[in-house]
Amino acid sequence: MKNNLYYPQVSLSDEEIFAEIKKEREHIGYYSLPYEDTTFLKAKLDSLNFTQKQIAIIGIGGSTLGTYAIYNFMKYNKQHNKTLKKELFFFESTDPVNLNGTLSQINLEDTLFIVISKSGTTIETISIFKYLMSITKIDKSNLLIITEDDSKLNTFAKANDINSFDIPKNVGGRFSVLSNVGLVPLYLAGFNIDELLKGAKKISTSFFEQNDLYDHLIKKARTYYEYKDIYNVNAIFSYSQLLEGFNKWYIQLWGESLGKIDVNNTNQGLTPIGLLGPVDQHSFLQLIVEGKRDKTVTFIKIKDFKDNTKIAPITLEGLEDLDYINNLDFKELINLQADATIASVKEYKKDIPIDLIEIEEISEYEIGKLLFYYELLTSIVGKFLRINTYDQPGVEGGKIILKEMLKTKN
Amino acid sequence: MKNNLYYPQVSLSDEEIFAEIKKEREHIGYYSLPYEDTTFLKAKLDSLNFTQKQIAIIGIGGSTLGTYAIYNFMKYNKQHNKTLKKELFFFESTDPVNLNGTLSQINLEDTLFIVISKSGTTIETISIFKYLMSITKIDKSNLLIITEDDSKLNTFAKANDINSFDIPKNVGGRFSVLSNVGLVPLYLAGFNIDELLKGAKKISTSFFEQNDLYDHLIKKARTYYEYKDIYNVNAIFSYSQLLEGFNKWYIQLWGESLGKIDVNNTNQGLTPIGLLGPVDQHSFLQLIVEGKRDKTVTFIKIKDFKDNTKIAPITLEGLEDLDYINNLDFKELINLQADATIASVKEYKKDIPIDLIEIEEISEYEIGKLLFYYELLTSIVGKFLRINTYDQPGVEGGKIILKEMLKTKN
Repeated sequence: MKNNLYYPQVSLSDEEIFAEIKKEREHIGYYSLPYEDTTFLKAKLDSLNFTQKQIAIIGIGGSTLGTYAIYNFMKYNKQHNKTLKKELFFFESTDPVNLNGTLSQINLEDTLFIVISKSGTTIETISIFKYLMSITKIDKSNLLIITEDDSKLNTFAKANDINSFDIPKNVGGRFSVLSNVGLVPLYLAGFNIDELLKGAKKISTSFFEQNDLYDHLIKKARTYYEYKDIYNVNAIFSYSQLLEGFNKWYIQLWGESLGKIDVNNTNQGLTPIGLLGPVDQHSFLQLIVEGKRDKTVTFIKIKDFKDNTKIAPITLEGLEDLDYINNLDFKELINLQADATIASVKEYKKDIPIDLIEIEEISEYEIGKLLFYYELLTSIVGKFLRINTYDQPGVEGGKIILKEMLKTKN
Repeated sequence: MKNNLYYPQVSLSDEEIFAEIKKEREHIGYYSLPYEDTTFLKAKLDSLNFTQKQIAIIGIGGSTLGTYAIYNFMKYNKQHNKTLKKELFFFESTDPVNLNGTLSQINLEDTLFIVISKSGTTIETISIFKYLMSITKIDKSNLLIITEDDSKLNTFAKANDINSFDIPKNVGGRFSVLSNVGLVPLYLAGFNIDELLKGAKKISTSFFEQNDLYDHLIKKARTYYEYKDIYNVNAIFSYSQLLEGFNKWYIQLWGESLGKIDVNNTNQGLTPIGLLGPVDQHSFLQLIVEGKRDKTVTFIKIKDFKDNTKIAPITLEGLEDLDYINNLDFKELINLQADATIASVKEYKKDIPIDLIEIEEISEYEIGKLLFYYELLTSIVGKFLRINTYDQPGVEGGKIILKEMLKTKN
């Protein structure tokens, strides 16, 4: 008897996954970013001595989401500490009303423009850049460019003596936050980029040296993989408005990396959702609790907000029943809200897979950890899914059609 | 032979659905909001003569999302038209760093506070209100309250001679945008609330008088229902940053209304996703195109942004290839981007159900239409799913646990 198997390729073992990740680490650039030395970069940026109080970042997708995530996480802290040197504004959309609206918030004369495009030919970015050039004087004194070394945008930079910073070819946009893409604007704005990298390095080391994170990440990724057809929606429920940017960054990372056709020619993809507590307790939570069992939920808490704002011990006529919240710190309230939500989901709904991430505090070190943790997790899930985590062929069709439409118009 | 059927309840016919909707229209309050006369409300608000330049809305979930959606859609237009009378700020989260950050943007002396809570005992809202009372003088001259007539918060209002506005008992939070919840702050900020209601009324009439929208909405809702186990994710892809607030409002409306246990004791629920074009072409689009076929996509376009901002005819050294975008209006570019994305999804991926909504322009009338269209669609899908669209029992568990936690602490 003979039985030829014309089967699709099956999944890999944990050990094979780790071996594959170690192998791809040799040529996928983001893995090495936490180990970079920033001495030269910082010296270079210091020497440029930009005095503008605002930075306009012109970029889209991977060129801005990571920077926005870190900025959004840290900015109010920095404002209070008076170490925020420059305020950041993001110009991403070709929506003209939004474009002019954002412009109305900045002082063009006191703004440093940073144009970021990996390919150098991103249509949204170049369009906005051209418009800005037509309304204000932009030159070496108020412009930086971040792009691939051999891009056409860099040709422009060189021809006009504009300072430019490289994006390595093997670092994909959505994995580029710890490259110049994020480091340049964040350093100029006054953030501690070394702490950021230190946090990322801590995660990297812990995984690759097979310490604490090794079993954890492999197991977590395997769970996403094995339950992908049941739990096809992966929500992050962050208990802090400061993680709004992180949520958006996660959505790009997870969606664009894992939504792919796999080696067996099958459409794969896990759907990322970003939620904010306690706000979304009044929105999406109902769907989690009583809705279809198709979601995993990762709760994220900040252990110590280091902010002592208190609910004042005021008694309101008629609302005396609520006096039990008096004198409570808000930082304690929000974490109790997270705990209560987690407890209610955990106790009563055992068929909803949940996990909890705790961030120690609001710091560059902690957000660096969180970002790299998710990059690594995404890479590992991608290996389980047997896809190419780093490309995005599915968006090319629309780009080609757009180009045809535009060329036909002219 | 005898065969007793112990089956779950089956679905209803289109006619039965319409009959049910007409029946619930008699007791579910939101249906009648477009027909309200605003004469008294406007006169009352005018007579109060608030001169503050800023409004701080203290509320969460249904108390703010609709107002934010309309404000976010309209504000830049109004700014340019110089008819925005007051700027709105939203205080929703118990995150202390975010709370203080938002506070740093307003001038407490020049702010009108509007506290909105349907039940009157929303813990986030009362906590923030108490805190604000401890840092600035709040009284009749700079405070409005919007709540149910017999709520404990209204007891406070009456005891302190604070002007309060009613939220009808039969209007649920997420369906309340066209009640006082939205109308009061929006009118004070300078928006035309009559146009808003007129848009909503247009939709309502068209459906209930069985004109254009009748077949359309029933068919659309039936499609969501019949394919719910295949396409369990419903993305809205809005080609304008101005619809960011609308997307959030939609997520609450869809998620919290439809995530329910049905008459057959089964977990039902369609997962809402909010995307923004062109930004999310660089993020989530890859997942739509190559990912698992579990998503429907509704594209939303604004036909005329009425903004003539142009891409300047500048040639950049090295980037001459991109000169075909020169002289293009941004409003045209963004809509071509939408068209190209739609075409690429439509032509090559026939197993992704998509639809397109076109908004004529950025006006109260148009957003009023869009909001009511989605409320009606949600109600109809709810009928197909045989659930209670208007309650939210799933979030009570967490609230009870939180209360216990807080009371134990004291």
